Amino acid sequence: MTYKAPVDDMAFLLKNVFDVQQQFKDIEVFEDFDYDLYEAVLEEGAKFAENVLYPLNRDGDEEGCQQDGDRVITPKGFKEAYQQFCEGGWQGINGSPEYGGQGLPKALHVLVEEMLYAANTSFTLYPSLTAGACAAIAAHASDELKQTYLENMQSGVWSGAMCLTEPHSGSDLGILKTKAEPTDNGEFKISGTKIFITGGEHDLTDNIVHLVLARLPDAPAGPRGISLFLVPKVLVNEDGSLGERNGVSCGSIEHKMGIKGSATCVMNFDDATGYIIGEPNKGLACMFTMMNKERLSIALQGTGLAEVSYQVARQYAEERIQGRSIREGKKGAAILEHADVRRMLLTMRATNEVNRALSVLLAMNIDLEEHSTDESVKSQASKMVALLTPIAKAFFTDTGYENCNHGIQVLGGHGYIREWGVEQFARDARIAQIYEGTNGIQAQDLVVRKVCADQGAVLFDLFEQISQTIAGTNAEFKAFADQLTIDLAKVKDLSQTIIKQSQENAFAAQGGAVEYLNAVAYVIGGWLWLKQLNVSDVLTDLQKQRKLAACQFFYDHLMPRIDSYVASISKGYLSTFELSDELI
Amino acid sequence: MTYKAPVDDMAFLLKNVFDVQQQFKDIEVFEDFDYDLYEAVLEEGAKFAENVLYPLNRDGDEEGCQQDGDRVITPKGFKEAYQQFCEGGWQGINGSPEYGGQGLPKALHVLVEEMLYAANTSFTLYPSLTAGACAAIAAHASDELKQTYLENMQSGVWSGAMCLTEPHSGSDLGILKTKAEPTDNGEFKISGTKIFITGGEHDLTDNIVHLVLARLPDAPAGPRGISLFLVPKVLVNEDGSLGERNGVSCGSIEHKMGIKGSATCVMNFDDATGYIIGEPNKGLACMFTMMNKERLSIALQGTGLAEVSYQVARQYAEERIQGRSIREGKKGAAILEHADVRRMLLTMRATNEVNRALSVLLAMNIDLEEHSTDESVKSQASKMVALLTPIAKAFFTDTGYENCNHGIQVLGGHGYIREWGVEQFARDARIAQIYEGTNGIQAQDLVVRKVCADQGAVLFDLFEQISQTIAGTNAEFKAFADQLTIDLAKVKDLSQTIIKQSQENAFAAQGGAVEYLNAVAYVIGGWLWLKQLNVSDVLTDLQKQRKLAACQFFYDHLMPRIDSYVASISKGYLSTFELSDELI
Repeated sequence: MTYKAPVDDMAFLLKNVFDVQQQFKDIEVFEDFDYDLYEAVLEEGAKFAENVLYPLNRDGDEEGCQQDGDRVITPKGFKEAYQQFCEGGWQGINGSPEYGGQGLPKALHVLVEEMLYAANTSFTLYPSLTAGACAAIAAHASDELKQTYLENMQSGVWSGAMCLTEPHSGSDLGILKTKAEPTDNGEFKISGTKIFITGGEHDLTDNIVHLVLARLPDAPAGPRGISLFLVPKVLVNEDGSLGERNGVSCGSIEHKMGIKGSATCVMNFDDATGYIIGEPNKGLACMFTMMNKERLSIALQGTGLAEVSYQVARQYAEERIQGRSIREGKKGAAILEHADVRRMLLTMRATNEVNRALSVLLAMNIDLEEHSTDESVKSQASKMVALLTPIAKAFFTDTGYENCNHGIQVLGGHGYIREWGVEQFARDARIAQIYEGTNGIQAQDLVVRKVCADQGAVLFDLFEQISQTIAGTNAEFKAFADQLTIDLAKVKDLSQTIIKQSQENAFAAQGGAVEYLNAVAYVIGGWLWLKQLNVSDVLTDLQKQRKLAACQFFYDHLMPRIDSYVASISKGYLSTFELSDELI
Repeated sequence: MTYKAPVDDMAFLLKNVFDVQQQFKDIEVFEDFDYDLYEAVLEEGAKFAENVLYPLNRDGDEEGCQQDGDRVITPKGFKEAYQQFCEGGWQGINGSPEYGGQGLPKALHVLVEEMLYAANTSFTLYPSLTAGACAAIAAHASDELKQTYLENMQSGVWSGAMCLTEPHSGSDLGILKTKAEPTDNGEFKISGTKIFITGGEHDLTDNIVHLVLARLPDAPAGPRGISLFLVPKVLVNEDGSLGERNGVSCGSIEHKMGIKGSATCVMNFDDATGYIIGEPNKGLACMFTMMNKERLSIALQGTGLAEVSYQVARQYAEERIQGRSIREGKKGAAILEHADVRRMLLTMRATNEVNRALSVLLAMNIDLEEHSTDESVKSQASKMVALLTPIAKAFFTDTGYENCNHGIQVLGGHGYIREWGVEQFARDARIAQIYEGTNGIQAQDLVVRKVCADQGAVLFDLFEQISQTIAGTNAEFKAFADQLTIDLAKVKDLSQTIIKQSQENAFAAQGGAVEYLNAVAYVIGGWLWLKQLNVSDVLTDLQKQRKLAACQFFYDHLMPRIDSYVASISKGYLSTFELSDELI
């Protein structure tokens, strides 16, 4: 079963749906880029994903990572693929050109990331974490640290890892205990244990640069007493060569449900030399600079796995002959003819294609936030990024897992057998709902910080954009515009409801947060379907008809989920709040 | 993390909610039984599940089944546990007393089954398949076959397996190819390959009795040309002792997402001696005799795994300190205080407890269908079994998987780590949505054969029972009764919609079948919650308050899903029908 990266759809989004170059017209760093370049990058990325990474995916799952002392060995072929990845310049695609990155837009990068996650999620997590670490270093570290580390990280010669979680401190980072003792020369000695560290140890690179959250001796309690440190596995000499081994070691690796080729490490820091990034006690803020990008990256894990799952299920459904077709009125039909199989495949495609669109919109706003010189554009983009990030992270990964499970179901009994590969997609997708902030946390973030904090101001800006799209819709798609008008009104009302609930009882609003996030996401989905249809005349007839089919399905059978969210949230969660623990 | 079988809740259902002994008052074979006996059986079953099976569950997943030539070795401890299982008489709990079974009601048996599946699904599948084979033999085989095989099977000395699926023939059994050649002595020579055979080979028993679907030489094509054969792994001598090995062998075992301690076998039949069960070419009908029981058994796999998942998540949520509680207004709260964790735990409990209730209702109707001497009771029960079986199978396993995934989410990152065990529950649960007829097939069965075929007559009988419960509801629960009245009306309308759709275009009705099944299930759930509340005064105050809390949650936050099903089905699936294959 093959995977083909959906390059045409990706180019359509960049060029026709969002016309990103038009959006970037005032951005100097992007002025030499054009759509031909973007398409060439997508084509090359597709080749790498399809031909190098995808063939390693199944075996990587079976083999997993192996521990040998404090060394961790990645599955067969990962090391060679990583060399090719670095040689192709993929690590620095969105990295700062000052330190060897290619400085391409995030809007392009997310599409490449989707392909990589689709082809091999375990592999892709290594460079994804490195990219995140680079972003934090580029934004907050001293020039000296940047000069010492960034070029080798952006080329992939060294990798990065993010060390946040401790055994007792997961979602609640404020209570972490890892210590940082200042030394006389301005450095720090880091001691403590971190868990669930993706790529904390592996054999792909000679050095691993850890970004570690820790407490200074005099730090205040809670989240305002956390600082960020760069702690390399191997110390770097003044001439840039590798020196002595630092006090960093991998205690063990976890045995997990999925992403078995990705090393998830317990990391021990034992008087390890570290260098502070940013101001003392401002570590969480530094870390959160890159958190939006990491959350978007994990969102793409959901989309990528759901896309490859769709493709495999679609192929199987065409080849598997079983039962009688009502459509064609014959025995011995491909199961693609069966009503329920069509329902599942269209559910997958209708969400995957709209999630992909939202990832480009969100990434484009990240680009504008970072690079625009127009302060109002920058500020508006920044607000959109803040609003859309939790939605993308939770919705892409929840629907991603749902869709991977549809993929299993299409294959029936074969879907449950490991050699067919689709059950791996589901297992690999499951973690994306948990890490980088659980989807429950994303929903709380949306309700509390992104919607209720400003009384829905930014959200209603977004809704205004939706109304404009509705107003400008081609007559051909009026039925969709009418339906979206109705659903938008429902979700506007629902937003008022949740704002009101949060004023009366914060718990009650948080109880409905996950449902609320989904309701908003389905309206955004309806909007982005309409935006695609409105420019679909540039597509081939087949492509346009496929868009129409998926959009119709989304409107008819997925957007109705909004009704259940509205009904549930309207009941409120006050009664749940009032229950004593023993009644749960 | 411990598992405690919910014995009190089970006894409450048998005695107070359904008062099964009153229902069975005219059934002679149950007349010596009473609630004391049922509770004693539940207590003993709980001990076995908690103390013998549950401790083997995690290791059994890690170790899996191993193949050694054509032998299959079950995980460590399974053999000893199986001996205890047999010695305790658990294999024949619901089996025919004429052949050593205990003849206890299915209504009790399902509750024991739930415990066993909760404690160790992989183990439980072996005796579950044996019980299914016994039921088919008891109903259709010759006296000679019964005498030769049933006693040893009902005691667990020999086990059973069901051999239906072939590589090209899964949901569509009509196209299976395994051949049965008659011999001169009235026996048959069976040749062919069967796949996905649960317990097809293992080391728990000295003999395995295969029930095999195959075609006679002159058989008509399709489902009406299939016959059922009993094919023992080891031939049985006239004196009942084991004789020569039959031409039955295990080619390989599958590597699966879950249920790794359950051997899923490719079985080769090579001129194997077989004995016909029932009439030639009537094999499918014989097999379907026991299919309702098997489907209910698999439904219980969903409930059991969701229950143990709830219990582990509930314990974790009480012990895990993380973040600030809005409820208690303090830092360092157990996550049980958090709104979203409460939402997940209550979702689990609210569905688990109502699914358990439905399993007793359905099993009680199986008992009445089998044993009642009142033809109208028997006939009405038979109709209810036919109607409720696909609902139970699909709904318990879909919500079972959903709930196991909530369990993972409550544990966060730890939920994804194998040693915590909850991800295993999800992996083990996933297959239940597929085997014994995929949940899509269950939904087609409900819509086509159980609802549309009689214009909803049996369904509206059930709705009439719901109305009676509403009419007789205590004033204390009037708000629920009012809500149920509204939702019942919605689902009645929806049933008319789907009947109308099926008359106009069968495909269109089938497209909405899964959603329709869920809509019906949530109304039945609301009904069974109300039935529980109406007799909840017999409970302790804490038990009653827990029932009330879960019921409230079910009505406020789960029954609203009906609205989305109504909205989606109302749009119809005609547009999906009309799409050419390339647009899917």
